[in-house]
Amino acid sequence: MHPIDLILRKRDGLELSTADINAFVQAVTALSLDPKAATLTEAQLGAFLMAVFQRGLSLRETADLTTAMRFSGEVFDTKPLNTFSVDKHSTGGVGDKTSLLIAPTLAAAGLENTPSISVPMISGRSLGHTGGTLDKLETIPGFDTQLTLPQMMEVLRDCHAVLVGQTPRLVPADRILYAMRDHTGTVESPFLICASIMSKKLAEDLNGLVLDVKVGSGAFMPTYEKSKFLAELMVATGERSGTRTAALLTTMDEPLGRFSGNWVEVWECVDILQNKPISPEHQRMSADLITLSNTLSGWMLYLAGKSATPEAGALLAAELIRSGGAYKSWLQIVAAHHGDTSVFANPALFHKPAAKRVLTASRNGYLSSMDCKEVGWAVQRLGAGRAVPGGPVSAHVGIESHAKLGDRLTAGQPIFTLFTEDPALLDEPYAMLQATVTLTDTPPTPQLLIREIVTAATLP
Amino acid sequence: MHPIDLILRKRDGLELSTADINAFVQAVTALSLDPKAATLTEAQLGAFLMAVFQRGLSLRETADLTTAMRFSGEVFDTKPLNTFSVDKHSTGGVGDKTSLLIAPTLAAAGLENTPSISVPMISGRSLGHTGGTLDKLETIPGFDTQLTLPQMMEVLRDCHAVLVGQTPRLVPADRILYAMRDHTGTVESPFLICASIMSKKLAEDLNGLVLDVKVGSGAFMPTYEKSKFLAELMVATGERSGTRTAALLTTMDEPLGRFSGNWVEVWECVDILQNKPISPEHQRMSADLITLSNTLSGWMLYLAGKSATPEAGALLAAELIRSGGAYKSWLQIVAAHHGDTSVFANPALFHKPAAKRVLTASRNGYLSSMDCKEVGWAVQRLGAGRAVPGGPVSAHVGIESHAKLGDRLTAGQPIFTLFTEDPALLDEPYAMLQATVTLTDTPPTPQLLIREIVTAATLP
Repeated sequence: MHPIDLILRKRDGLELSTADINAFVQAVTALSLDPKAATLTEAQLGAFLMAVFQRGLSLRETADLTTAMRFSGEVFDTKPLNTFSVDKHSTGGVGDKTSLLIAPTLAAAGLENTPSISVPMISGRSLGHTGGTLDKLETIPGFDTQLTLPQMMEVLRDCHAVLVGQTPRLVPADRILYAMRDHTGTVESPFLICASIMSKKLAEDLNGLVLDVKVGSGAFMPTYEKSKFLAELMVATGERSGTRTAALLTTMDEPLGRFSGNWVEVWECVDILQNKPISPEHQRMSADLITLSNTLSGWMLYLAGKSATPEAGALLAAELIRSGGAYKSWLQIVAAHHGDTSVFANPALFHKPAAKRVLTASRNGYLSSMDCKEVGWAVQRLGAGRAVPGGPVSAHVGIESHAKLGDRLTAGQPIFTLFTEDPALLDEPYAMLQATVTLTDTPPTPQLLIREIVTAATLP
Repeated sequence: MHPIDLILRKRDGLELSTADINAFVQAVTALSLDPKAATLTEAQLGAFLMAVFQRGLSLRETADLTTAMRFSGEVFDTKPLNTFSVDKHSTGGVGDKTSLLIAPTLAAAGLENTPSISVPMISGRSLGHTGGTLDKLETIPGFDTQLTLPQMMEVLRDCHAVLVGQTPRLVPADRILYAMRDHTGTVESPFLICASIMSKKLAEDLNGLVLDVKVGSGAFMPTYEKSKFLAELMVATGERSGTRTAALLTTMDEPLGRFSGNWVEVWECVDILQNKPISPEHQRMSADLITLSNTLSGWMLYLAGKSATPEAGALLAAELIRSGGAYKSWLQIVAAHHGDTSVFANPALFHKPAAKRVLTASRNGYLSSMDCKEVGWAVQRLGAGRAVPGGPVSAHVGIESHAKLGDRLTAGQPIFTLFTEDPALLDEPYAMLQATVTLTDTPPTPQLLIREIVTAATLP
């Protein structure tokens, strides 16, 4: 295959063969190793990505691209564990900390025999307006997210779950393609998004995968239809690779749970996992998070054969938290990652922001809407995200939600508390939140949290 | 403008502003000077070209791109000549040597006062299956096609026509964009073809321009509709720049004239310009060339105000050849380019191929079709074209046509004579010509040479 032939075929809307796609991904990987010796140039890669953006890929091409990317570097091998390996992936939201509840819940279920479970969870960092699981975990003193594959295997064998970052040698083709997409204006192609997400997830060598595809004002995808199309693509791609895959389309119109930030999100999960009585207000603020986490865990338990239905799986997940089993697994996982579990004794005391400010209701009325992406950006600007790529994030920053969409508020009642480590960073996020929150005389139309399920059986 | 914003706009089918396009072309030119300091990367250029290929450009964008490219380097300035500057451009054919007749014809017309004419003809080299005017001219001993702009001005002032190659500083943005299009599979975009051709022609600072847009099996554009679309784009772009522009859609289904090659094409033109009696067979073989050249010259003379109609212009062109005025100008132009005019005394004697072979009719029948592109490639393989970019071409190679489409031939009657400087190069072109020529029992449908005229008045 000459790169130009591949570009011309895709330019004219023709299908590429499996061999063509394999050769292309090999050329992409070679390009990152030695640009001068590569058969493909960056200009050709830019043209190819734009041709794919405009013409799309067939289901077969998308699956072939995903597979070729998956095997472009080293891959994880869960077979020696002799367990059902399962993971969850979210397309990214605000206050979305379900991984911190799901990993210990599934690990607790994995402690029981027949079938045992392992959750090889490779997570990401803060991206755009969304938070990153790794950034949240690293606020726990000592917590190490950078394990080698053999270390991952050891933690998985001992704890049934591991919470790590991408290794440099895992799916290298995605790193190059992602950087080039970002650089050439070709990020938002559902086919390229699917291949990027699924190549990394399938490199975990999964038997089952549950996808949380966000819709609403805080989602990356701009419309419900585009989110659904991406969900269908990812489910079809996973199933073609022999991984049982289900996708949940879930609402992201306001921050999920009580806190959005870094340590504060760990704190909220520890409160839930410790299963101690929490105030009715905190209970109510965390309710959507708990429902979503248990629903996703339920689907994972169902795929793993631990429950007869996803609904029964969700009840099992709730029971694993209520019994303290999930918290026990949490402590074990954190310790295996060299994290200091003593901070969980009183998470509220460990939270030490330098300054805070409360945004209150300017009038009586219903909390009817907010641009959730703008809320996410406000959290990032408080210090939760990076000012420059590779830069540091602040641990004790974020927002606490005191109200949910549809709540009836009176003037002066708190909506958000903002936390920051640098008082100079309060003004801009405060103004952003103030501007995006809308209070109205009539209540907004309520929105379901779980909107739709996509599985192999529902595919068009 | 950040390059990414420009890519995103075009990717999504939105229009780019004049300022955006100017900044883009400046960035392209900067990229060629110093890739490391450039604001645009090659990957972004590849993505942008593919976005343009897929989404197209509006008429305004095409004109803006053409203008920005035209002024990307040094430009010619014909104002000091105080003449009507006019040129002809052909999209490329086989045996297409009209420039060698048109330049001296118009120069002869320019010798007369009110209004005077200058023809600043910047030509190209052999490309693909087509020949190049510069390669033909350089078979005249001593002929120098590489003049500086001041030298061009001097020849133009003295002779009213100049026949030169592109200077490195003229339209540098086109050189980069053309190389990148070739490299990224984005050559065949009518918008980019228009900007490439018209930026170079308009850099000649023309008052009038006549375009010969080829259609048929020897044309670069694959369909009549695409050729017509390109013609309309170029006429609209020229007119927007204040250059009176007309395009003729002309048939290229067989080699134009009697000879196709390098020196043999000069020979054919010298025969015509010398206006001596030539054999009826040679007369008949050159008839289409003479008709097309005089028609194109006629349009140029009409645009220059030398005739009341294009048809009257064609009659004037024929008269300028018949009177010997065009030949006198030809000798003057060749001498000004340091060419040795003594070879015109007996052009047939100067023609010294090392070997020749005659392809004859295999049966009785009508010469009904040939793939004219294949005929062009056969001529290139005889040595008229380059084996490697920048390599040498052979002077005394090519083919002589002994029959035209529609002729009734008897078995054994000659169709083509092949000439080469290396006898080893005869077999492949001979086989190519043999395979592409079709003889049938019934005559083919005759095709008009001039199919359609596109002017400002006919634009949709």
